[in-house]
Amino acid sequence: MTTEPTTVGILAGGGPLPAKVAEAARAAGHSVFIIGFEGFAEPDVLAPWLHECVRLGAAGRMLSLLRAHGCSDLVLIGPIRRPSLRSLCPDAEGARILARLGKALFAGDDGLLAALVRILGEEGFRVRGAHEFLSHSVARPGVLGRYTPDAQALADIRHGVAVTQALGRLDIGQGCVVQNGVVLAVEAMEGTDAMLARSGLCRQPGEGGVLVKLLKPGQEKRADMPTIGPVTLRNAHAAGLRGIAFEAAHTLLTDMQACQTEADRLGLFLIAIDPATYVQPA
Amino acid sequence: MTTEPTTVGILAGGGPLPAKVAEAARAAGHSVFIIGFEGFAEPDVLAPWLHECVRLGAAGRMLSLLRAHGCSDLVLIGPIRRPSLRSLCPDAEGARILARLGKALFAGDDGLLAALVRILGEEGFRVRGAHEFLSHSVARPGVLGRYTPDAQALADIRHGVAVTQALGRLDIGQGCVVQNGVVLAVEAMEGTDAMLARSGLCRQPGEGGVLVKLLKPGQEKRADMPTIGPVTLRNAHAAGLRGIAFEAAHTLLTDMQACQTEADRLGLFLIAIDPATYVQPA
Repeated sequence: MTTEPTTVGILAGGGPLPAKVAEAARAAGHSVFIIGFEGFAEPDVLAPWLHECVRLGAAGRMLSLLRAHGCSDLVLIGPIRRPSLRSLCPDAEGARILARLGKALFAGDDGLLAALVRILGEEGFRVRGAHEFLSHSVARPGVLGRYTPDAQALADIRHGVAVTQALGRLDIGQGCVVQNGVVLAVEAMEGTDAMLARSGLCRQPGEGGVLVKLLKPGQEKRADMPTIGPVTLRNAHAAGLRGIAFEAAHTLLTDMQACQTEADRLGLFLIAIDPATYVQPA
Repeated sequence: MTTEPTTVGILAGGGPLPAKVAEAARAAGHSVFIIGFEGFAEPDVLAPWLHECVRLGAAGRMLSLLRAHGCSDLVLIGPIRRPSLRSLCPDAEGARILARLGKALFAGDDGLLAALVRILGEEGFRVRGAHEFLSHSVARPGVLGRYTPDAQALADIRHGVAVTQALGRLDIGQGCVVQNGVVLAVEAMEGTDAMLARSGLCRQPGEGGVLVKLLKPGQEKRADMPTIGPVTLRNAHAAGLRGIAFEAAHTLLTDMQACQTEADRLGLFLIAIDPATYVQPA
């Protein structure tokens, strides 16, 4: 990035990535202010940084905090579960934003997140993708670590790409598990880790399967990029898989070195792919 | 059916349907012989009928039993899990059939079942669909029971039809759960009941969702028709759903009266649809 030094506001869900974005922003010469979503952001992760914790529904408080700290750029990072409207308890500004979200509240995740990004833009913020800051956490096509997929695994990756893209076009999910041509499990709302646990139960005899995880076609990259961490590798291994294929340039690795070490330790391949080169043979 | 009286061989997996097919075949003037797959067929269900229990891999024994009993027509009915090749222990004929299945063993379920039906045909049997015998267990389009889907539920059904047909074209699964436009869960290998349990955990606030279950496009109807029973209704209710939409003329109800009674008792709608009339509005 070649932007002027500014203050980056980080809207933080769970996991370690909010702090990684903060580190990267500071290294690039920016100031940082973090808003942690109560119940999702991890206090230990935010502790070293200037931050406030705010209920998800308190949009008015968020906007005034972001403005009080002079944030011009925003990054949304870290998982939050789709909130229950009942539990949201919006403040006055929150209620106005809910009204502006309107039908998008009842669309798939993409529709909802894209609408949120649009509204934050209308409020005068530049919404940036976490990948713009974490460029070192985004892999180019190629194998990470010691293990590479064999012909069967490559065929499963191709099949998984076709399946995941079909799912993604319907705004359903970002991943699936394929073993020897059979789709064991498909991800919807439950998330990747739950899908991996299930595919372990449906495991077929023979060589283990692969997890394929891709950005949905047309997905808003600034809100919900696919993420892979060492835990994903451990869960894939526990489910009997042989490796993970993910979309190069469009996946955040929470810790690339730790992912690679874990893949080598567990004997899994970890490959960043360009889905366009993995189309099914006709 | 207007076939001559003959002996119908029933290859029986789990659940009550093998006995229902046997009753219907006998009512139509046929003799019946059942082969129960060990570990899947339920002894109590088979007990009143002339039957033998055979390992799934013992294809030679199955074929000679079917011929010894003069079976000319076959019906495959009742769920079996996709077997582990290791656990199959094929007999000599079983090994020959495995070789003939060849690549289909590693295709999706449709490919495998279609290949099995083809091989049984090549062996001189007429393979019939269970729905040919159980015509009273297959609903025409319309609502069963007291409850009908409202506008939101109808919109969710339309979305679920689009999703399920896309999945079906990829030979993945027969169903999904949609709530207020959001796809909560998608069925692959784990089966409908596991998907329902999961969608209960992913449930969103607001009106409950719907289960949509359809035949896959191009699916071999003689081997794996979608099935709904009272248990499906109880599981859907436990997951917070408001109803079930299934494909008219292509779904077996294990007990139509019991399904309707259970739907009324639980306050669920149960609707048989023609998917062609439930396409998404453009």
